[in-house]
Amino acid sequence: MRMYDVIQKKRNGETLSETEIRWVIEGYTKGEIPDYQVAALCMAIYFQGMNLEETAALTFAVRDSGEKLNFSDIHGLRVDKHSTGGVGDKTSLVVMPIVASLGVKVAKMSGRGLGHTGGTIDKLESIKGFRTDIPVEKFKAIVNEVGVAIVGQSAELAPADKLLYALRDVTATVDSVPLIVSSIMGKKLAADDDCIVLDVKTGSGSFMKTVEDSRGLAEWMVEIGKRAGKRMRALITDMDRPLGNAIGNALEVVEAIQTLKGNGPEDLTTLCIALAAHILCLAEKGDYATCERMAKETIANGTALDTLARMVQAQGGEKEWIYNPERFPVAKYSRDVLAPTDGYIVGVDAEGYGVASLLLGAGRNTKEDVIDMTAGIYLHAKTGDCMRKGDVIATLYSSKEDGFAASEKRLLQATKIGKNKPEEKPLILDVVE
Amino acid sequence: MRMYDVIQKKRNGETLSETEIRWVIEGYTKGEIPDYQVAALCMAIYFQGMNLEETAALTFAVRDSGEKLNFSDIHGLRVDKHSTGGVGDKTSLVVMPIVASLGVKVAKMSGRGLGHTGGTIDKLESIKGFRTDIPVEKFKAIVNEVGVAIVGQSAELAPADKLLYALRDVTATVDSVPLIVSSIMGKKLAADDDCIVLDVKTGSGSFMKTVEDSRGLAEWMVEIGKRAGKRMRALITDMDRPLGNAIGNALEVVEAIQTLKGNGPEDLTTLCIALAAHILCLAEKGDYATCERMAKETIANGTALDTLARMVQAQGGEKEWIYNPERFPVAKYSRDVLAPTDGYIVGVDAEGYGVASLLLGAGRNTKEDVIDMTAGIYLHAKTGDCMRKGDVIATLYSSKEDGFAASEKRLLQATKIGKNKPEEKPLILDVVE
Repeated sequence: MRMYDVIQKKRNGETLSETEIRWVIEGYTKGEIPDYQVAALCMAIYFQGMNLEETAALTFAVRDSGEKLNFSDIHGLRVDKHSTGGVGDKTSLVVMPIVASLGVKVAKMSGRGLGHTGGTIDKLESIKGFRTDIPVEKFKAIVNEVGVAIVGQSAELAPADKLLYALRDVTATVDSVPLIVSSIMGKKLAADDDCIVLDVKTGSGSFMKTVEDSRGLAEWMVEIGKRAGKRMRALITDMDRPLGNAIGNALEVVEAIQTLKGNGPEDLTTLCIALAAHILCLAEKGDYATCERMAKETIANGTALDTLARMVQAQGGEKEWIYNPERFPVAKYSRDVLAPTDGYIVGVDAEGYGVASLLLGAGRNTKEDVIDMTAGIYLHAKTGDCMRKGDVIATLYSSKEDGFAASEKRLLQATKIGKNKPEEKPLILDVVE
Repeated sequence: MRMYDVIQKKRNGETLSETEIRWVIEGYTKGEIPDYQVAALCMAIYFQGMNLEETAALTFAVRDSGEKLNFSDIHGLRVDKHSTGGVGDKTSLVVMPIVASLGVKVAKMSGRGLGHTGGTIDKLESIKGFRTDIPVEKFKAIVNEVGVAIVGQSAELAPADKLLYALRDVTATVDSVPLIVSSIMGKKLAADDDCIVLDVKTGSGSFMKTVEDSRGLAEWMVEIGKRAGKRMRALITDMDRPLGNAIGNALEVVEAIQTLKGNGPEDLTTLCIALAAHILCLAEKGDYATCERMAKETIANGTALDTLARMVQAQGGEKEWIYNPERFPVAKYSRDVLAPTDGYIVGVDAEGYGVASLLLGAGRNTKEDVIDMTAGIYLHAKTGDCMRKGDVIATLYSSKEDGFAASEKRLLQATKIGKNKPEEKPLILDVVE
């Protein structure tokens, strides 16, 4: 087989065989196929696409490119929730403790974030003492005992995805459906879970700008997951607005804790309950209404918060911070952003909010960047809210003052103000199963 | 400027600025932009194309990527002829001596061939003693004295093209009009010629499969050459059949000599006279009819053959071989290919003939391959000829016997036989000026 022929075939709009796709991924992972040929292939895929069969073959090849996890000594059904990424998305921190409180197991291995804010493990590291580099036996023991644990992803898990993503990231080939599907599902399927619920974001703050595109992406991921023997479900959710009010690592952990205490923002609470209920449905804990009620109860009776606290303690973190989130360090500097005019917030560019947060130090531009855990944004007004000129619409936090001006400018650019109250859009737009 | 943004812009179908294009070519030549990003850009260009302005900017950036030749101390108008490449194309060997005999100067720097047969300098090296590594001062002195010389291309001439071509060759991005134009014209414009005549091949044996595509390519090359201050003309010529009867290095040189003696195949003679006449027109030697007559005279009176012999001698080769081509070594082995059935040859896949020749050792698969100078094919029957089953339609030559079976098979595959005589197609399909 020659890589030239594979590139040419895809470039000409033909369908690649499973054998060809597997050969490319194996060769690339071993370093036998050079970056420049894979870059050309990714761009050809960007233009010519891939059908479901090709995308499934690519996903399974990525899954099989490294070691696979074996969690068979974790008792009970193992579940996972994956979000395609959004601004202010701290749902994992809420959903994981809820479902773990109800008897399903969450053995989560997560990557570090590159972008607006850190990933889930970065966020948890804002808790004093919290460790994400736990040996696998200990990790499994925590999952068996507490119900949930989260550690950093092993380098050996789906290494082809790491290589491919790094290459796509510098060659403008990230936003291609087959490449997105195979990246997300290749990694997910290398983990040893029984049920996976996907949160596919749609709108300005995500890869997919329309509901139709997001549904297409979700349908393929659900189908491919099922072919790999998983119980699958996907929610299409709105990312035309940030989720909750907090953007930034410690700020988001605190908001997640508030949500587990029953005092979270309405949008975040709604989505977390829905995600948890769908996971519980897949785990056959009852019909949707029953599962939803069970999820709400774990918040009302405090068991979900206790589960998070126990996980934090088991992973070396300060349990008391969970019960007393005022102990989280607060940024040295803060600045209020004022409404420039009277009116309603009729829409926001969530990605712009992400960039505003990044400018404060809340995320990474390169892998070597150190995250400022206290940096971020707290939103006092969101889409649909009415305000008067001079009202505080957001507060910026950072340990350095020099990012405030640029961050404020970016945040205001991303906030559309109008005369009339915008129509309310549902947060959960569709469910694919 | 970021390479990511340039790739994304082209991927999205936008027009790149001259500044962006120049920045990419300079950065790539210096090794500051990696192969994988340029590969992604080439594939994006393959799909989105480039307009004339972008293509001109790319061409000039390639031209300016290394040293430029200065041949101002060569007396008289300097002319060049370039072919987009075809099977059995030995026109340079005939056209150069004709025009040099008539007072224009040909200072040709030529690359080595990678493919079916060698390039012009490879072919000339089949003459005993002929040297192509002549110092530039000596080279210019030969041009001034004899009228024509041909040497190997300096590595420093348009180095961006060398890099780009090598990359396109392994990433299935060769057949893109803007990339072909900038590659050919970038190199040509780095040489110091006053007039350039292009021979743009069309049909199965070339990049461009239709006359319309070839005309488009020719128009852009002519326009871009004019913008760079050159006198330009392009012929669109048929490559649905090999040119002449000989394919292979020594075989082609011998056929070129026969043509200069007035005994060449009709198609080759016709095209060589036309190319020479168009060059002479650009050099203002008279109107087309006059120039055509002058070109024919150099064959009739032997001056063109003398010019070739003097060039060969000046470059260290055996002059007597030109007058007595039976001195060229003949391949150790030969095999006749017989017509499998009665009928007319209704068409051939010229590229298939090229591959058949390559299988005998006449070309290079990789840069390191050594060419078998005696290897090749002599065609006894061409498109339009009638034959009976068992007639010899071609003779294969090689210094090894092991390529014969595969070569014969490929040659027969590439030969379409039918019951009715095919319509005759003109060799020269159009002239662009």
